[in-house]
Amino acid sequence: MPSDVTLALGGPAQDLLFREARTANSFTDEPVSDDTMRAIYELIKYAPTSFNGQPLRVLLIRSHESRMRLVRNMSGPNQAKTHAAPLVALLAADLEFHETLPRLLPHLPGAVDMLADSAIREEAAVFNGAMQLSYFILGVRAAGLAAGPMIGFDEDAINKEFFGDGGHKVIAVVNIGKPGENAWHPRSPRLAYDEVFTVV
Amino acid sequence: MPSDVTLALGGPAQDLLFREARTANSFTDEPVSDDTMRAIYELIKYAPTSFNGQPLRVLLIRSHESRMRLVRNMSGPNQAKTHAAPLVALLAADLEFHETLPRLLPHLPGAVDMLADSAIREEAAVFNGAMQLSYFILGVRAAGLAAGPMIGFDEDAINKEFFGDGGHKVIAVVNIGKPGENAWHPRSPRLAYDEVFTVV
Repeated sequence: MPSDVTLALGGPAQDLLFREARTANSFTDEPVSDDTMRAIYELIKYAPTSFNGQPLRVLLIRSHESRMRLVRNMSGPNQAKTHAAPLVALLAADLEFHETLPRLLPHLPGAVDMLADSAIREEAAVFNGAMQLSYFILGVRAAGLAAGPMIGFDEDAINKEFFGDGGHKVIAVVNIGKPGENAWHPRSPRLAYDEVFTVV
Repeated sequence: MPSDVTLALGGPAQDLLFREARTANSFTDEPVSDDTMRAIYELIKYAPTSFNGQPLRVLLIRSHESRMRLVRNMSGPNQAKTHAAPLVALLAADLEFHETLPRLLPHLPGAVDMLADSAIREEAAVFNGAMQLSYFILGVRAAGLAAGPMIGFDEDAINKEFFGDGGHKVIAVVNIGKPGENAWHPRSPRLAYDEVFTVV
């Protein structure tokens, strides 16, 4: 049963971000500039995280050597995609993000102490990193590009290879570019509203 | 340094979802209908989750009794906000979401087995639930409403009170409505692009 309510967000924007956007599995050769990534970030940075903690850190894999270090730690089916994408971004959660809170959350000086425990802090870093991964995917789409987020990789190996300090945890690798030929699988089913929402 | 790149998403949509939207702390009395929530879901359901798992479940707190059961388990400063909001949504991750995968991911029948371990499954449920929380917040904004997401509550008590089966984990409580008077705190700082992005 469709809803009769019309959203404030216009139809073309709905299509661009949600309805027609798809996870891409192939891309054209057209490069994606750092300036485009900056424009994306300057938009999505405003979306909320708890305690305004913003734990997301992004490595843009530009050098051939970095690309090879990443590809060999991707799972089998993801290797070719990661090798071929015009731009690959490695998204990680900064496990020491609390150190920045005095600047990011000046009106709540006690927040740092609430994150003193490293297990609680890691949980918060990954949770908010996952929230920011969503903003990142929608930001890529807002730039007219397609995102191919992947979680199939050797997490420990990538953490060590790219963040030797142990203070970061990779949460996703995202291929970015203009969609190529046969970029999409058929769309998989979504849950119905009544399977997800319950009035209590 | 601002970017020279113009995004495909139009300026009004950028403002609605990111730039002018803010986490609201007070709301008008105007109600938010189930039909509006349905319209929001029919848009955001298309955004991606890993394995297309869609673990998010939402309780719309409509009855006075449900509201009271929730309010008393919110942390101090969140109680009044949760009491007053026109609509309160309790967002949870379904820890048994893998049971739906044969329907949601028909082309990858092995995915269910990869989630057989309950600890791995909980991690995946919460991670993807956090991703869907972001889509939900942006969906509320797409409807011209403001969201007030909160994580300050007694998690164990809410899990027991609303999901006695132990198969769900609350991840956020979100107040929803038209922003009221003095709805916003001043915007807290965001990290600069060069603090978040590194080219390697």
